Amino acid sequence: MPSGEIPPIVIQRLPLYLRALSGLESEGEITSQELGRRVGISSAQIRKDLSYFGGFGKQGAGYEVGRLREKLRQILKVDREWEVVVVGVGALGHAIARYAGFNNRGFRVVAAFDKDPRVIGERVGEVVVQDVAHMVNVIKRLKAKVAIVAVPTSQAQEVADALVRAGVRAILNYAPTNLNVPDGVRVRHIDPVAGLQSMTYYLDSE
Amino acid sequence: MPSGEIPPIVIQRLPLYLRALSGLESEGEITSQELGRRVGISSAQIRKDLSYFGGFGKQGAGYEVGRLREKLRQILKVDREWEVVVVGVGALGHAIARYAGFNNRGFRVVAAFDKDPRVIGERVGEVVVQDVAHMVNVIKRLKAKVAIVAVPTSQAQEVADALVRAGVRAILNYAPTNLNVPDGVRVRHIDPVAGLQSMTYYLDSE
Repeated sequence: MPSGEIPPIVIQRLPLYLRALSGLESEGEITSQELGRRVGISSAQIRKDLSYFGGFGKQGAGYEVGRLREKLRQILKVDREWEVVVVGVGALGHAIARYAGFNNRGFRVVAAFDKDPRVIGERVGEVVVQDVAHMVNVIKRLKAKVAIVAVPTSQAQEVADALVRAGVRAILNYAPTNLNVPDGVRVRHIDPVAGLQSMTYYLDSE
Repeated sequence: MPSGEIPPIVIQRLPLYLRALSGLESEGEITSQELGRRVGISSAQIRKDLSYFGGFGKQGAGYEVGRLREKLRQILKVDREWEVVVVGVGALGHAIARYAGFNNRGFRVVAAFDKDPRVIGERVGEVVVQDVAHMVNVIKRLKAKVAIVAVPTSQAQEVADALVRAGVRAILNYAPTNLNVPDGVRVRHIDPVAGLQSMTYYLDSE
């Protein structure tokens, strides 16, 4: 089935299923009910989502954990390692560039950029921070397609424009602002405040 | 309309609409098409989502930016300021505790906890890091309902259990693992890898 036919919301749930399978024994089975409990999504929705990708499990039986994990990794194309560049190495960018959670989940930080001379040249995690002035050329040379933006809101669009010029096709944006990008480039937001706001709706004020 | 009747996915989209309105002139209007373009959601979906909350706009006309923003802030209960505690003050927790983006969006970090003696006592942003051994008592005294978890995966469940005991009802979890919490407690995940994985699906490998 061509990618275009699968609803984007389905694709966005697949990483949650994959995450929920981590830490489980590869040899075991998991029912859609148990998987649903772990991710907070109904078992019917999970079965429907997975049905887009063909035969995962036997009717009425659970999913084989190891097989489902491998299939999800293949579908999401994280059965390989994507090179990621980080732009903006303030407090947040430091934490991102050093984040151990990328390992084994499909990503590796291969470059980091900032415009602050106090940060340029610093070793952060596996990389040395480079001058953002060289960013487009470096990314073109690396052929990196994935970037993480952790600059202040006021600079986020300008950075995104440069990343697109450099050939980046997937941007994870930590700045709490929407980015305009051309067709064929995808943006996801990491916005803790949006996450918090979607919970306070349910809280009683005291 | 009681909260229970509105689909959770609708509530999760409201913060995105609110974010998209930031930076726009309060006096102006915005069409659902333009709002949709900014958030990457269809205008029909936006009108349907907002219709759960009654009359926002005149038929066929745009939404008043200032009025829509205020209504969304009221619905999400971020027309007030929620006190937030941060647990885990490693590289990521430092960035969170110092994050300026909470201001004016409904949240203020009022306490931070860690178990590392090298971090306890350190001033981070507006707070001084406290020993996690005192966490439950401090949170009870503060009556804080909102927490951010930035501890390693192996400690996340234990911390969540303690937060629930302390009366926390909303947990933003940065550890890439699912948390078991009782009914009435909500969890949202901040998982950059899940965000990246939902984009690599669309990328061609080269």
